[in-house]
Amino acid sequence: MEGVDHLADERKKAEFNVEAMKIVWAGSQHNLEVSNRISKLVADDPAFRKDDRTMLPRKELFKNTLRKAAYAWKRINELRLSEEEASKLRFYVDETAYTDLHWGMFIPAIKGQGTDEQQRKWLPLAYKMQIIGCYAQTELGHGSNVQGLETTATFDPHTDEFVIHSPTLTSSKWWPGGLGKVSTHAVTYARLIIDGKDHGVHGFIVQLRSLEDHRPLPGITVGDIGMKFGNGAYNTMDNGVLRFDHVRIPRNQMLMKVSQVTREGKYKQSDVPRQLVYGTMVYVRQRIVADASCYLSRAVCIATRYSAVRRQFGSQNGGPETQVIDYKTQQSRLFPLLASAYAFRFVGEWLEWLYTDVMQRLQANDFSTLPEAHACTAGLKSLTTSVTADGIEECRKLCGGHGYLCTSGLPELFAVYVPACTYEGDNIVLLLQVARFLMKTVSQIGTGKQPVGTIAYMGRIEHLMQCRCNVQRGFAELSADLVEAAVAHCQLIVVSKFIEKLQQDIPGEGVKQQLEALCGIYYLSLLHKHQGDFLATSYLTPKQSALANDQLRALYSKVRPNAIALVDAFNYSDHFLSSILGRYDGNVYPKLYEAAWKDPLNESVVPDGYHEYVRPLLKQQLHTARL
Amino acid sequence: MEGVDHLADERKKAEFNVEAMKIVWAGSQHNLEVSNRISKLVADDPAFRKDDRTMLPRKELFKNTLRKAAYAWKRINELRLSEEEASKLRFYVDETAYTDLHWGMFIPAIKGQGTDEQQRKWLPLAYKMQIIGCYAQTELGHGSNVQGLETTATFDPHTDEFVIHSPTLTSSKWWPGGLGKVSTHAVTYARLIIDGKDHGVHGFIVQLRSLEDHRPLPGITVGDIGMKFGNGAYNTMDNGVLRFDHVRIPRNQMLMKVSQVTREGKYKQSDVPRQLVYGTMVYVRQRIVADASCYLSRAVCIATRYSAVRRQFGSQNGGPETQVIDYKTQQSRLFPLLASAYAFRFVGEWLEWLYTDVMQRLQANDFSTLPEAHACTAGLKSLTTSVTADGIEECRKLCGGHGYLCTSGLPELFAVYVPACTYEGDNIVLLLQVARFLMKTVSQIGTGKQPVGTIAYMGRIEHLMQCRCNVQRGFAELSADLVEAAVAHCQLIVVSKFIEKLQQDIPGEGVKQQLEALCGIYYLSLLHKHQGDFLATSYLTPKQSALANDQLRALYSKVRPNAIALVDAFNYSDHFLSSILGRYDGNVYPKLYEAAWKDPLNESVVPDGYHEYVRPLLKQQLHTARL
Ligand SMILES: Cc1cc2nc3c(=O)[nH]c(=O)nc-3n(C[C@H](O)[C@H](O)[C@H](O)COP(=O)(O)OP(=O)(O)OC[C@H]3O[C@@H](n4cnc5c(N)ncnc54)[C@H](O)[C@@H]3O)c2cc1C
Ligand SMILES: Cc1cc2nc3c(=O)[nH]c(=O)nc-3n(C[C@H](O)[C@H](O)[C@H](O)COP(=O)(O)OP(=O)(O)OC[C@H]3O[C@@H](n4cnc5c(N)ncnc54)[C@H](O)[C@@H]3O)c2cc1C
Repeated sequence: MEGVDHLADERKKAEFNVEAMKIVWAGSQHNLEVSNRISKLVADDPAFRKDDRTMLPRKELFKNTLRKAAYAWKRINELRLSEEEASKLRFYVDETAYTDLHWGMFIPAIKGQGTDEQQRKWLPLAYKMQIIGCYAQTELGHGSNVQGLETTATFDPHTDEFVIHSPTLTSSKWWPGGLGKVSTHAVTYARLIIDGKDHGVHGFIVQLRSLEDHRPLPGITVGDIGMKFGNGAYNTMDNGVLRFDHVRIPRNQMLMKVSQVTREGKYKQSDVPRQLVYGTMVYVRQRIVADASCYLSRAVCIATRYSAVRRQFGSQNGGPETQVIDYKTQQSRLFPLLASAYAFRFVGEWLEWLYTDVMQRLQANDFSTLPEAHACTAGLKSLTTSVTADGIEECRKLCGGHGYLCTSGLPELFAVYVPACTYEGDNIVLLLQVARFLMKTVSQIGTGKQPVGTIAYMGRIEHLMQCRCNVQRGFAELSADLVEAAVAHCQLIVVSKFIEKLQQDIPGEGVKQQLEALCGIYYLSLLHKHQGDFLATSYLTPKQSALANDQLRALYSKVRPNAIALVDAFNYSDHFLSSILGRYDGNVYPKLYEAAWKDPLNESVVPDGYHEYVRPLLKQQLHTARL
Repeated sequence: MEGVDHLADERKKAEFNVEAMKIVWAGSQHNLEVSNRISKLVADDPAFRKDDRTMLPRKELFKNTLRKAAYAWKRINELRLSEEEASKLRFYVDETAYTDLHWGMFIPAIKGQGTDEQQRKWLPLAYKMQIIGCYAQTELGHGSNVQGLETTATFDPHTDEFVIHSPTLTSSKWWPGGLGKVSTHAVTYARLIIDGKDHGVHGFIVQLRSLEDHRPLPGITVGDIGMKFGNGAYNTMDNGVLRFDHVRIPRNQMLMKVSQVTREGKYKQSDVPRQLVYGTMVYVRQRIVADASCYLSRAVCIATRYSAVRRQFGSQNGGPETQVIDYKTQQSRLFPLLASAYAFRFVGEWLEWLYTDVMQRLQANDFSTLPEAHACTAGLKSLTTSVTADGIEECRKLCGGHGYLCTSGLPELFAVYVPACTYEGDNIVLLLQVARFLMKTVSQIGTGKQPVGTIAYMGRIEHLMQCRCNVQRGFAELSADLVEAAVAHCQLIVVSKFIEKLQQDIPGEGVKQQLEALCGIYYLSLLHKHQGDFLATSYLTPKQSALANDQLRALYSKVRPNAIALVDAFNYSDHFLSSILGRYDGNVYPKLYEAAWKDPLNESVVPDGYHEYVRPLLKQQLHTARL
């Protein structure tokens, strides 16, 4: 049956131009072309094979990742790939590795917080990977509360050095990716102490390992923090633990763009605005939102294809059974996630624009939009990662029992993805920040300060303020409810950006119609889920709410014939998806069967342990057995 | 600091008698005593160590499970444990194994479907484990739709045998636990074919492996289906694949309690009521509900203790930071789960009673309560497993970054638990059954048939029927909404059983008050979540809904000082919890630090692979490296 497309009938049903949709998803014809080329490059190269990843024990797994990372870098150089192409290549290699932190955090931190001189010194080394860096902020005792970090960097005026030290067990650095086994350097966050005075947390470039033999430098204790959730997954990464015992670094390795320590031990602020730091945060979180749409769409692609292959019940007269994608319950779980994948894609595009806009303003010393941009990215990071994490698991459940097999690809996708809800800001802590921003905006409404951008709508809520005034409780007490408000605010942004997208010119037959249907599914399913809020505030009547639900069901039927084509538009190769259930050709059963036999347990017919532990039991000889 | 109880202050705050609550949780003083004794037996025995489980590669992991299962059986025999004690021992060993299926499905299937003669022949062998059995129903192509199974059992009148055969690839048995590597026998479900006529699916006892050398018997292809979700977790189980090539078994190995095939090849029903089969289903699902409360309470215990240990933000004047359990957002996520653990415990107790009641009625040929009991257990299985699976993951997130480490215990707990949402009936398929039952009840209301038991309340909804009558759509079209109704129905059962529990006499100072607070949290948080349904139907006004939410917050404050004691009452040993974050003594940080060094990656300071893949990269010599 090799070569047969089991989903051909489904593809024929599509009522829109799939190639045009691919461009919409990719963002441009150019992006699509690069993606096509690089994804094929990776998929065709057996060195990037990853279908055995969930079977490897930790050490082999990790060694394999080191190999892939080196090989990828070799290919990037051999093929003289551009920065854009190189980052796409890492994307399609699809294996969490120390390089993510090197490129994604170490280099940006130096760029964002280093002086020009520091950048000139360190960036060329980092760009060529003559040094490998990580981002060492979190400690055993402090993650969310960065201001509470305990590592110290004490200035020694005699030698013109900082002494980096871990004064307590809880001050051990803990979690930084790439730290455990690979990084030669770390941007390390520590409390700056000068002459007994604590100036708060600052970043320092600290060398950790010898560039000759890779052994930890004197005073440095470093290792891996151990297994994390799932097979394969994030275990390809060496998240690390690190303790300093009075490690000395030259003064000029403190990142000094924003504040400086002089030779004499004077602490001073530079004239570069502190707010620039937030620019980096906006950048990183915007990347996370873009990733969310990618992870969610992968899971949705797998579940949608398998739901069209899988048939269960409802056979009439010995005919084929019903495809499970035709059950309304399956649709009501799957299609809102499909819609979310598209919605997150578009809000991610908008955030990319927002980041550029904010940076341009910052350069021009205009900080006015920063609080809003900050709240937007914090909130959207939280919203999209939470929905994606839950959505991947829902997709796994949508595949019934077979979704529980690693060969479905879904368990690893979930396990590798979920920490996104925690790193770069715990999702609840972020929502509390958004809530605080909203409260502040509300409190300023009376003062004549008109809210703009994503909070413009709040100018219209003065009457709500009246209802509010008899509530005299503190923020902390009401925080759980304020978090709900923050989520609603973020959902509003997602919906508006989807709608704005639809107001643009979108070429391709039927493409816009499909996106309109998905947009409808997105907001109507939210409306259904949160109908209580709309009813309680009389924004909807029960009747309207019921009609909206009818409309939602109608949209499911509209999307149904296009479902396979809508996930084809993500343009993921079988290598990238790494899922037998999500195969492009739908040839699920023979491939599942084939893959099973590769498990190490099947190397022998009679399992290792039979003679010691099974046979004596069956033969009632356990009492004499040594166990 | 060894020996110090870091949670002592928390324990002092408790306003109720923890020992009395332990009895409530255990169900009786006797249960508590047995649990205490057996859990200590397991925890104190190094042979049952499990803290390395998530680090073992599959083959070692599996061999280790074989060892533990044999050793457990040896101890059960040496200590002459009663059936109750033996099953508690397996519970506390806490490692999914082939024995679960042997005791939990193979033996019950023979008891439920075998004739007295068959039981006399097979049960003694099974009880002594001279044979090991599994339950082979699901196939590659059919899980939920059991009637669609393809394996055939064709009667051969010449030899008085059945020929068991797998006619297609999709007819391969797929998923049965214990099948892959261990079982010597399987209760196998196959279509009974006599003289070309298909009599539907029946159970057959089929020997799979030689009792001498454990090799598969002729015509049998059998193996493991490969890695499943997570480290350790369900990978200790050999879920298997099985194909039959015209395998012959004697006629008397068809399970013939309900229907029989005579020597002449006549198919006939016995006078035993078919409904008895449902009794077994009620039994198995009732066990799953009991398990749900156990798994959820484990996760809640870990997250609660760690939330009291973990401090983040809010330090005043250098004093200690705020315990994260004091944040209202943390409480609003954690305490409803704590309340659910108790709620599920009590509804589980009630289901146990229901099972006994149903069985007694069945013996007396009274089938009247069977549909309701069936709907109850199907619905509650679905509800409790879904909430538990999501709840475990929420508890993991409540632990911030550290929850992502395997040593937190939570990743494995999640991975091993989630298939409960799929096996023994996919949760959505089960809810559809409940929905159908509810619709049937509604449709009979006009006919004078008065609903009783858990559906008695439906007798009061005649006016709702009026609103309904202009809706003329089919069940399938509205199924997603009907599933929501089914969930609400099940929630009502849980709430009523919690309230009934509180109407009983509950000894112990303050115990009942705590349970009342938890019951309030349980229903008020549900009410908050589903306020839309209450508002839409005018069962609540917006104002009432807001007041209920205030009340919910007040209850969080009431439970807060008792939180640690409420999870202590689950009476779980550190061995059983297997979580550094959930340690009884709260000594989290030193133990996390200690455990990290045990990862295989830390065996050498310089990682395996450095010389091949890291050094050439740093030294810019990749172009000549062989990768
Ligand atoms: C896979 C992974 C990779 C990582 N990589 C890196 C890295 O490369 N470099 C690095 O420096 N760090 C890294 N981290 C660490 C990560 O940044 C932290 O885990 C994250 O910031 C969350 O902090 P925490 O773990 O201290 O959570 P905590 O703050 O301890 O959270 C615990 C609980 O408390 C709640 N909580 C905390 N504060 C409040 C509050 N004020 N109000 C209400 N509730 C609150 C949270 O919501 C959560 O439920 C990584 C973590 C993971 C899991
Ligand atoms: C860990 C594990 C252990 C197991 N152990 C055993 C064992 O020991 N023995 C054994 O025989 N089996 C075992 N199974 C198999 C298990 O019983 C099946 O996986 C389960 O019955 C679900 O069936 P399925 O996989 O065919 O799901 P499917 O029915 O294929 O479900 C796929 C999707 O279709 C939906 N769907 C299906 N039918 C309908 C419908 N009519 N209406 C609406 N939606 C529908 C489902 O909701 C789901 O979203 C095990 C499975 C697992 C994961």
